[in-house]
Amino acid sequence: MKAYKIPEATVIRLSIYSRQLSNLRKAGVETVSSEEIANSVGVSSAQVRKDLAYFGEFGTRGVGYPVDELLANLTKILGLNREWNLAIVGAGKLGSALALYEGFRQRGFSIRAIVDHDPNRVGVDLAGVVVDPLDRLETLIKERDINIGIITVPASQAQHTTDRLVGAGVAAILNFSPQVLRVPPEVVLRNVDLAVNLKVLSFNLSHNR
Amino acid sequence: MKAYKIPEATVIRLSIYSRQLSNLRKAGVETVSSEEIANSVGVSSAQVRKDLAYFGEFGTRGVGYPVDELLANLTKILGLNREWNLAIVGAGKLGSALALYEGFRQRGFSIRAIVDHDPNRVGVDLAGVVVDPLDRLETLIKERDINIGIITVPASQAQHTTDRLVGAGVAAILNFSPQVLRVPPEVVLRNVDLAVNLKVLSFNLSHNR
Repeated sequence: MKAYKIPEATVIRLSIYSRQLSNLRKAGVETVSSEEIANSVGVSSAQVRKDLAYFGEFGTRGVGYPVDELLANLTKILGLNREWNLAIVGAGKLGSALALYEGFRQRGFSIRAIVDHDPNRVGVDLAGVVVDPLDRLETLIKERDINIGIITVPASQAQHTTDRLVGAGVAAILNFSPQVLRVPPEVVLRNVDLAVNLKVLSFNLSHNR
Repeated sequence: MKAYKIPEATVIRLSIYSRQLSNLRKAGVETVSSEEIANSVGVSSAQVRKDLAYFGEFGTRGVGYPVDELLANLTKILGLNREWNLAIVGAGKLGSALALYEGFRQRGFSIRAIVDHDPNRVGVDLAGVVVDPLDRLETLIKERDINIGIITVPASQAQHTTDRLVGAGVAAILNFSPQVLRVPPEVVLRNVDLAVNLKVLSFNLSHNR
């Protein structure tokens, strides 16, 4: 597929646009302007047009974007027109919460394996996926065609877990641990800061009053 | 405090810069260039300078930014130089995971109350906070000086919960439910899409290979 050089912030906005468009479609809206998208997301309409322009021409000047068509395009751009298979390493509170989160399934992310080193967690059923022992990680990744590994283990175990996921062939890692991880250049790594949303609230509470 | 009109994407980047600076300080680094910040976050150095320019002049041309000073400034800009008191409504898997997440405490977000309608969850200790019955929500918000409500209840209960939080005087709401919520204009609302990080991974897996 064509290699784009797209800023991460743009990709995040595209995923927010796609969620807004999905809500609009549910509400029966057929056409939307860049201003309406912009207002609902809290950016300028010029920003919306610039973000979309990376990927071609969408919509008609003065008429707007057909919601269905733009959503289909964004879905394809974001790679959400296929299913990704996930493994969660760590079946503690966070791993379990992620396993049970319905929003993943709805968006084409299928949790195919959950592993934990704790024998007391093994065998627990999380939304239809039974927790396996950690030593089966490599086997499960191969057998279940897993592309993405999600790390919710303690920081001290995170690099070792990453090395095992990479060794078993995952293409991407989503890291919830506070550890800075090393991966080979061909592996996509994303670190999640669960506090970022609270920081945005904190900023707004401090300034927009 | 001065009212800024800052794009949300900028605020998100500022919070990511602040995390990078915090890591740099831990690593003993004293000075950093906009290029180094930019590279570690994956944006252009022009973007870093533009984001910081909203708030004044930082750093010295050709020398860079003193890590300590820039971090202190960002902390103040983001409103993280004070403690925010949080209540979590819903002590299920996600509410419990958030209650136990150490990253909140480390960044000045103090979870002061957790409530649930399920008598079986009441009395459970989550990192030192004992789950209270839902009907104590308003009392706890007043007694414990809570500013931010976190909603992890099912979608069908989310608006009612929001109304109760707003009625009891919280200034901001972080919504983890998939429900679109209505709040009065003076209340800050932020909706969290836990799938957004997976969408960014999906984009990268589809395009950068």
